[in-house]
Amino acid sequence: MGDLEIRRVTAEDLPAIVAMLADDPLGAQRESPDDLAPYQAALDRLDADPNQHLVVAVREGRVVGTLQLTVISGLSRKGATRSIIEGVRVHADERGSGLGTQLIEWAVDRSRHQGCRLVQLTSDKTRTDAHRFYERLGFVASHEGFKLQL
Amino acid sequence: MGDLEIRRVTAEDLPAIVAMLADDPLGAQRESPDDLAPYQAALDRLDADPNQHLVVAVREGRVVGTLQLTVISGLSRKGATRSIIEGVRVHADERGSGLGTQLIEWAVDRSRHQGCRLVQLTSDKTRTDAHRFYERLGFVASHEGFKLQL
Repeated sequence: MGDLEIRRVTAEDLPAIVAMLADDPLGAQRESPDDLAPYQAALDRLDADPNQHLVVAVREGRVVGTLQLTVISGLSRKGATRSIIEGVRVHADERGSGLGTQLIEWAVDRSRHQGCRLVQLTSDKTRTDAHRFYERLGFVASHEGFKLQL
Repeated sequence: MGDLEIRRVTAEDLPAIVAMLADDPLGAQRESPDDLAPYQAALDRLDADPNQHLVVAVREGRVVGTLQLTVISGLSRKGATRSIIEGVRVHADERGSGLGTQLIEWAVDRSRHQGCRLVQLTSDKTRTDAHRFYERLGFVASHEGFKLQL
């Protein structure tokens, strides 16, 4: 396979990203690939926030993965900064290629450079393959992840 | 008990907040109440970030609780904004007073006003009382929470 580039998202990447978000057992019910306007509005908010790092992985000119990293200051743990990984998606054609690992390693490196002492993420309890993947990368499933829909 | 006020944190609140962070089975090993400098630096970063809402609960002039709410834009779920609750602490004297509920309800209300569609938090798997508390407030333990220390 060709070289991989991980770079900041631009508006031109949105159709490919939303297609990946929708191509997922959970995402299929939650996304609207035929109407990109709400995604463009969200991208504008992300671009305006220096603590947001939204990237795509590109191979041979094609968007094949995405990930969002948010850097969060806080008082606990002696004022430790942490990062949160959200929205990890790998194109169906690329599964098993090691791309997921490269994306997470990118996020961990970027977190280190931003002075983070902790990287965290939550993964739906039904995604058991993802859980093994994160454990192999050194993450510990030490917490319960709670959500409240508004 | 007297009236409760929930308001933005100021530098004068730091000693009381750090004392609460340290007065906890997990926090005791992680905090440095004798050296507030790293907490002040973190507070400066939080104050500079419009997506951060760090508050204290004050009763009769005394800090009795704290909570950090972070508002996070994102592409998934049709560009939904979500919020993350971190660093919830209630003073030992106030446990069972309903203060924890008031703090979380404040965070949920604020999240709604900020246009969030989802509120999320993680809680250490050893904090089983906290899990029952969040479930009573309508949160669903749908996710595994992974952490990686750097």
